[in-house]
Amino acid sequence: MLMKKQEIIRTEKKAGGKGHVLIEHLITPTEMKDKCQMFAKVTLEPGCSLGYHKHQGNTETYHVIKGSGIYNNNGNEITVKTGDTTFCPNGESHGIENISSSNLVFIALIIND
Amino acid sequence: MLMKKQEIIRTEKKAGGKGHVLIEHLITPTEMKDKCQMFAKVTLEPGCSLGYHKHQGNTETYHVIKGSGIYNNNGNEITVKTGDTTFCPNGESHGIENISSSNLVFIALIIND
Repeated sequence: MLMKKQEIIRTEKKAGGKGHVLIEHLITPTEMKDKCQMFAKVTLEPGCSLGYHKHQGNTETYHVIKGSGIYNNNGNEITVKTGDTTFCPNGESHGIENISSSNLVFIALIIND
Repeated sequence: MLMKKQEIIRTEKKAGGKGHVLIEHLITPTEMKDKCQMFAKVTLEPGCSLGYHKHQGNTETYHVIKGSGIYNNNGNEITVKTGDTTFCPNGESHGIENISSSNLVFIALIIND
C-alpha cells in the first residue's frame, strides 16, 4: 500500500479521563491481525487525560512525540516529555494527563500477550 | 515499568542504503513476544537511506514524526512528510531516503504475519 489516510476519532472521558482524547489509528484491525489491538497517534489537549486503567491480556507502550504530561504508573505519578517511552505490562495499570498549556502527543501500541 | 531508557544504535548501509541509520528500539524482543519484531524510532540524517528491501512473513508500518523523505513503494517513489503513514504488506517491498537538509524521523513497527 502506497500511503494511508486516517481519520481522527474524538472520544469523551476515555477510561474515565478528563475532557476528550483524539485518536488517529495508524493501521487497521485487519492489518494488525491477532498480534496487536491498537497502533495509534494519541493527542491530549490541555487539561485532558486518558483515565487510569488496567491492562488484562495485553501490554501497552507509549512514546511521547510532542509536549509533556503526568504519567500514572500503578498509582505513582511521574512527568513524561518528548522522547520518553513508558511500558505497561500485562496485569498492570496506567493513565496519562496533560496539565500543560500545549498539546501532548504520543504513539500508543497495544500488543496482545 | 515506570520508564524505559534506550540506547541509539548506528548501523552503516542498512539494507544496502546510503550512509547510516540511527535506531532507538522502544521495547525489547521479550516485551514484543512473538507478535512483533521491531518497534523503534528511526532517524535518517541528510543524505542517508534505509535500502529497498522485501518483507517476508511480516508487515511494516512507518509513521513520519519529523521531516520529509522519498518513500519507495514496490519501485514507485513518493514524497512523505511529518504526519504521513505508510504500510508495507507481507511479500511487498519498500525503502526510504532523506534527500532534505534536516533529519527525517519516523516510527517503525514490524508485525509478524
